[in-house]
Amino acid sequence: MATPVDPLGTVSATGELAPPPAASGPAPAEPNATRISDMIAAIARIGADQSGGVTRLGFSEAEREAHRLVGTWLADLGLRVRQDAVGNTIAELGDEASSSPAIGIGSHLDSVPGAGRFDGVAGVVAAVEVARMLSDDGLGRPLRIVCFAGEEGARFGEPCLGSQAVAGRLGRADLTRIRDASGTSLADAMTGVGLSTERVDGARWRPNEWAAFLELHIEQGRTLERLGVPIGVVDVVSGSSRIRMTIRGRADHSGGTPMDERLDALVAAAEVVTEMERIARLPANRGARSTVGRLDVLPNSLTTIPGRVDLVVDIRDVDSERLRRITEHALAIGSDVCHRRGLLLESTVIAHTAPVVLPIWLRQAAMEVCAGLDIRHRVMASGAGHDAQFVNAIVPAALLFVPSRDGLSHVPEEWTSVTDIATGARVLLELARRIDSQLHSMESAQA
Amino acid sequence: MATPVDPLGTVSATGELAPPPAASGPAPAEPNATRISDMIAAIARIGADQSGGVTRLGFSEAEREAHRLVGTWLADLGLRVRQDAVGNTIAELGDEASSSPAIGIGSHLDSVPGAGRFDGVAGVVAAVEVARMLSDDGLGRPLRIVCFAGEEGARFGEPCLGSQAVAGRLGRADLTRIRDASGTSLADAMTGVGLSTERVDGARWRPNEWAAFLELHIEQGRTLERLGVPIGVVDVVSGSSRIRMTIRGRADHSGGTPMDERLDALVAAAEVVTEMERIARLPANRGARSTVGRLDVLPNSLTTIPGRVDLVVDIRDVDSERLRRITEHALAIGSDVCHRRGLLLESTVIAHTAPVVLPIWLRQAAMEVCAGLDIRHRVMASGAGHDAQFVNAIVPAALLFVPSRDGLSHVPEEWTSVTDIATGARVLLELARRIDSQLHSMESAQA
Repeated sequence: MATPVDPLGTVSATGELAPPPAASGPAPAEPNATRISDMIAAIARIGADQSGGVTRLGFSEAEREAHRLVGTWLADLGLRVRQDAVGNTIAELGDEASSSPAIGIGSHLDSVPGAGRFDGVAGVVAAVEVARMLSDDGLGRPLRIVCFAGEEGARFGEPCLGSQAVAGRLGRADLTRIRDASGTSLADAMTGVGLSTERVDGARWRPNEWAAFLELHIEQGRTLERLGVPIGVVDVVSGSSRIRMTIRGRADHSGGTPMDERLDALVAAAEVVTEMERIARLPANRGARSTVGRLDVLPNSLTTIPGRVDLVVDIRDVDSERLRRITEHALAIGSDVCHRRGLLLESTVIAHTAPVVLPIWLRQAAMEVCAGLDIRHRVMASGAGHDAQFVNAIVPAALLFVPSRDGLSHVPEEWTSVTDIATGARVLLELARRIDSQLHSMESAQA
Repeated sequence: MATPVDPLGTVSATGELAPPPAASGPAPAEPNATRISDMIAAIARIGADQSGGVTRLGFSEAEREAHRLVGTWLADLGLRVRQDAVGNTIAELGDEASSSPAIGIGSHLDSVPGAGRFDGVAGVVAAVEVARMLSDDGLGRPLRIVCFAGEEGARFGEPCLGSQAVAGRLGRADLTRIRDASGTSLADAMTGVGLSTERVDGARWRPNEWAAFLELHIEQGRTLERLGVPIGVVDVVSGSSRIRMTIRGRADHSGGTPMDERLDALVAAAEVVTEMERIARLPANRGARSTVGRLDVLPNSLTTIPGRVDLVVDIRDVDSERLRRITEHALAIGSDVCHRRGLLLESTVIAHTAPVVLPIWLRQAAMEVCAGLDIRHRVMASGAGHDAQFVNAIVPAALLFVPSRDGLSHVPEEWTSVTDIATGARVLLELARRIDSQLHSMESAQA
């Protein structure tokens, strides 16, 4: 493992944003840890919250500000920067008249509430660093740096909204259907930050304009750290199901109501929580993951029996058939428990994403690049969902991981060494060059 | 059951408070449902919240406003009104120079969050109605109407703060020890609403100044309604234990963390919730009540494994030995579950109140009064704690119940018919008269 470097060490005491990376001088040959650290620190100031972490929810003003900041950096490097209809930032380097399909590199800039500084950001700053290294000579085709909007499902339940839009999976009807916990629709959230909801279909990418998409992301697990390996090459991304359950009982007085007259929504919810853990831990379901991360008790008063509980079950699996079976089990368990206890249950599958196997030729190219650079790597599955899996529906995508300290993510303590991110940027650069030349050979052969 | 009367039907559409009951004219012989209804409606406007109910937390400005309003009504009836050191309102009717021990009647004016209009208020307005009926002739001894402060444990965990103070159970050290969920100490809350914390010991009642204390309260259960009986005479008040547990795990990403690497605080909490329900439902523990009414998940994000859960277990029992045993079981369960799962547990018993058997002579007198008035009644235990049980430590206390519709309490739907409250006021009046004359006979015999 690399020596830890404090990513905030270079931020000025006055709290000013780090200056955008200088555009002058020749393009560097290697990614630079200090520049990466400065960029992470600058982005971390946007949405910094009381938890010591950051809260930069999808389609919030903070997310927009992060997009604008990265956009100015990319413009200073000479890229043509634009924002698409759904709020994704796309910056192009290379001949504007080129008809060759581009190579895209990027990740996202939004976060969960009380998040760390690296999730999404690591991949964006590595992509900016690749753009810097290519800013003099470019590739034989356009390079496009992409910052996706609204990747985290934490706000709207539905993850990867920006990448779903470019893959044509997000229509105008979805914008009013998808709502956050406070009832705000995605359409209203978009309008609130100055995005138009009229042209969402225009965000869709034309497959013939893209050759490949590469994403670097933090692992959000312990595997790479435990193995002491700096790069993970993802073969398959887990699918996920999310079920929102509202359990309604009766809010009686805790002293006045005998045990056999109660309609306690929390004891029912507790049964769902323990049963879902049991199912996911069965040896036959090894690899499946089930989590109740969000659970709200109403009225949440210590002398009142809970009259209502809202919770979300998050299920992940690389096996689509098993994912479906465990999802059905969760719905059945909720229904059985509430029926037996005389409670009312509303359950809704608020998101369902199938597992995605990423293209073997890109994975193979990534492994060859790592071997050529003498960088240890490991093929692994991703438990978390990522933009790359949605992009892959229309453009071949590769997903690379860098280690997460203690496996922590979605918390202020989330941390990845900038040395590892720099290593990731080197792999991205060489992988882009390799794909470029492979495609060039193919194109020449066809011509 | 009496015909339901809408207690808010008489409030003016402009939202003005009902005028205080007129002081002129002869004292009425009977309690009046319309006056009771007007008083309930006027108090319900103080702290009315978005839930459609009221939020009048102990030691809040809303609670103080309710005390002031009732104080003006009592002053208009000719009572001498004062506020004691801890914020209890005490109003005296009768000869100021009398050295006879007084009869007290009253209840409380604070509420849980999102409460109904009757808990505490029913007993206060019945007491005001008794004062009105006695305003011409009085008793042979002082009558004191008492509005206790901070009865609900919902804010500070510790219930009946005003009545604990008069019983000498609340010292200055307690004022800084007792804190609400936001960390505000009772002392700071008191100072915030203009109460001095210097003289809390001065609130203590001298037993020789009081002959008896009578409290009317809503049942907060279904027994009276089911039996069609308007008055319950309480023989024993359940004791209660409250245990605050903080379970600390690790907030990992829900996708990136395999099931066997998790430290999930919520699944541990769910085990505690289900186990406590199981224990309280055992046939051997019939009558015991265990509730987890408050449970907070952190960070409460659907893609993050819960890193921390705070919850409170509320245990009630009329049997003190069994209460102690179930409390110890709860502590052991929390400890076992967290130890087995590798989690950290902090558990604190934040309140422990022994069951209280109320004096049989007062209960007998209450039953004779009901029989004399041809009012159906029923002896019953109280699952909830009440001010009367703390007062009873120094002054003999009686506790009467009136029915709660559907047993609901601590919710906006809480409802008791004003006819039943009027019936309760009649019983209080006659009970006060009977105790007065019984004591007068005893005092004469001794003289």
